[in-house]
Amino acid sequence: MPATFFHLDHPPIGSTVRTTMSKTLFDIVSDFPYYEEAPARFTETLKSYHAFKVQGIDATLGYIPNTLVRSIRWPKEHWMIDMGAIVLIKPPDNAASTRTQFIQDAINRMIEAGYTGILKGWRNERFPVYGPDGDVILEIERSASALFGIVTSGVQMLCYVKDVNGIRLWIAKRSMQKQTYPGMLDCTAAGALTVGESPRSAMILEATEEASIGRQIIENGMRYVGSISYFHMKDSSIALSEQASRPVLLPEVEYLFELQLDEGTVPRPKDSEVEDFRLWNVDQVLDALGRGIFKPNSAVVVIDFFIRHGVITPETEPMYEEIIRRLRRQLPFPTAERSA
Amino acid sequence: MPATFFHLDHPPIGSTVRTTMSKTLFDIVSDFPYYEEAPARFTETLKSYHAFKVQGIDATLGYIPNTLVRSIRWPKEHWMIDMGAIVLIKPPDNAASTRTQFIQDAINRMIEAGYTGILKGWRNERFPVYGPDGDVILEIERSASALFGIVTSGVQMLCYVKDVNGIRLWIAKRSMQKQTYPGMLDCTAAGALTVGESPRSAMILEATEEASIGRQIIENGMRYVGSISYFHMKDSSIALSEQASRPVLLPEVEYLFELQLDEGTVPRPKDSEVEDFRLWNVDQVLDALGRGIFKPNSAVVVIDFFIRHGVITPETEPMYEEIIRRLRRQLPFPTAERSA
Repeated sequence: MPATFFHLDHPPIGSTVRTTMSKTLFDIVSDFPYYEEAPARFTETLKSYHAFKVQGIDATLGYIPNTLVRSIRWPKEHWMIDMGAIVLIKPPDNAASTRTQFIQDAINRMIEAGYTGILKGWRNERFPVYGPDGDVILEIERSASALFGIVTSGVQMLCYVKDVNGIRLWIAKRSMQKQTYPGMLDCTAAGALTVGESPRSAMILEATEEASIGRQIIENGMRYVGSISYFHMKDSSIALSEQASRPVLLPEVEYLFELQLDEGTVPRPKDSEVEDFRLWNVDQVLDALGRGIFKPNSAVVVIDFFIRHGVITPETEPMYEEIIRRLRRQLPFPTAERSA
Repeated sequence: MPATFFHLDHPPIGSTVRTTMSKTLFDIVSDFPYYEEAPARFTETLKSYHAFKVQGIDATLGYIPNTLVRSIRWPKEHWMIDMGAIVLIKPPDNAASTRTQFIQDAINRMIEAGYTGILKGWRNERFPVYGPDGDVILEIERSASALFGIVTSGVQMLCYVKDVNGIRLWIAKRSMQKQTYPGMLDCTAAGALTVGESPRSAMILEATEEASIGRQIIENGMRYVGSISYFHMKDSSIALSEQASRPVLLPEVEYLFELQLDEGTVPRPKDSEVEDFRLWNVDQVLDALGRGIFKPNSAVVVIDFFIRHGVITPETEPMYEEIIRRLRRQLPFPTAERSA
């Protein structure tokens, strides 16, 4: 029998393994319905949201829960509400900075209306919102972005050790002091990609700051392994405010990197973001995935890693294609085509 | 610098290579628009087709060009035409075989109306059409399936040799006598997956019959590497009939296999399907892809192989994610979830 080409360093992960988990791998990646698989459910779901648009730009940029649209004032000189859409009127100067200011005014009214989660999470970092031509047409404060349902971007890296016993991953445990997902498991290093950052330089910064890995090691060994795109729905109970009775919609693009480390290179917490790092084998990581103790957008990155490294294969995972489909989802929004 | 994990046996294929080609890799995989990326274009395109439905089954099963719908009679006791859909009425016995007969009657009327390509391609093989629950709800003669725009299935295998110089692929050249795509390049072995066949046994049969590879070699070394799904549009000029003024829609699911061969194992034509086999290196295959001389649904299989084997990577291919997205497309039809 010829040697298999690039994988099977590990015992295959069959359905018997997965039945001991509370979540299947597909449960982890599955979320907002596709129009193609369920047009009626897709349309029904979207009835609870207003499409967020900008006058003169032919695209939906996000989705705002109807409850939120109704709970604040949208001044008629800046906003049109019509046919299930909320449209930011073209400002006289047609400038991104002016649109950003009108968005900020709306965010301030949300805070006044009781959406205090925005303030708690405030970081003074803004996400860019792209138009169909790849231009940044406005910017939104990071902690309010979920309420607009815009596409956000981030970078994530998994460091790993590989030897005759197979692959082990450096998994981070988030600090209990983190505002979001305290105590949950995470990739080795990760961060948001805010205005003006390139994926590669943002990733290098996060890896040196969060995991204390030497800059030279990172720059020599870090590989860009593609981006994933998916569409997460987050229950209002854990959303920014109790008042949003519908889940917020979180479409995301994550730029992924990986870095093979020698046994002797050990990530260590540096800032207060990470409690510890543990070097886990495949079974330990799969078990943690099944128990749902990974931060959701880190869990999907781990699954993508396992697919690329042949741990999850079509011969053993019946939902293999569905999982890939969800991880490289065609989002119904413009996204930047950034190279890493 | 740590060794890369599973690829880069070959020089990276950058955009400089691709600009010498007439077709980019993305051109090859891109076809029918996604609703999510272009709702208006999607809706506009579908105006030229009737959705093919079966009464009592809540799904679109295919798309029939309007010109074809208008060119034959659809007896009122068996068919309803309404709101851009053509619906096969539930027969009194609600049997798949009865529905199959009504479809066959319609196909006969198409042949009488001049769609003689159906007869030329006739093979007495039927494709199953699945409902949302995975049941076969009717069957359609293979040579007429494109006119109904139903999802068809096939199996394809690439055999390859791997040594210190990298990977070489066993590429088949189709016989000039083939009804479809004569003289074009193909995977090592391929075939349709018609009613009652399993992907693995169909693949073994094709590989022994078309490529004369020993059954023992195939069974020991053949690996299932997942299915791809995509949505091809085929110009009417090469469609089954000149009368279809619109492209026919060809959604497909292909079950993919690969088999690493020793230098000494050489595929040889056996039946009249294949003219010759050539052992080509990566550059030769990429060049042929760019020149558009691969059969379209074999070209996409070669691209998937190159992605899995690290020849096409996110570091060198700017449309990497888009290509994956197109190859694992969420089709707007029910498909069987077959394991190989």
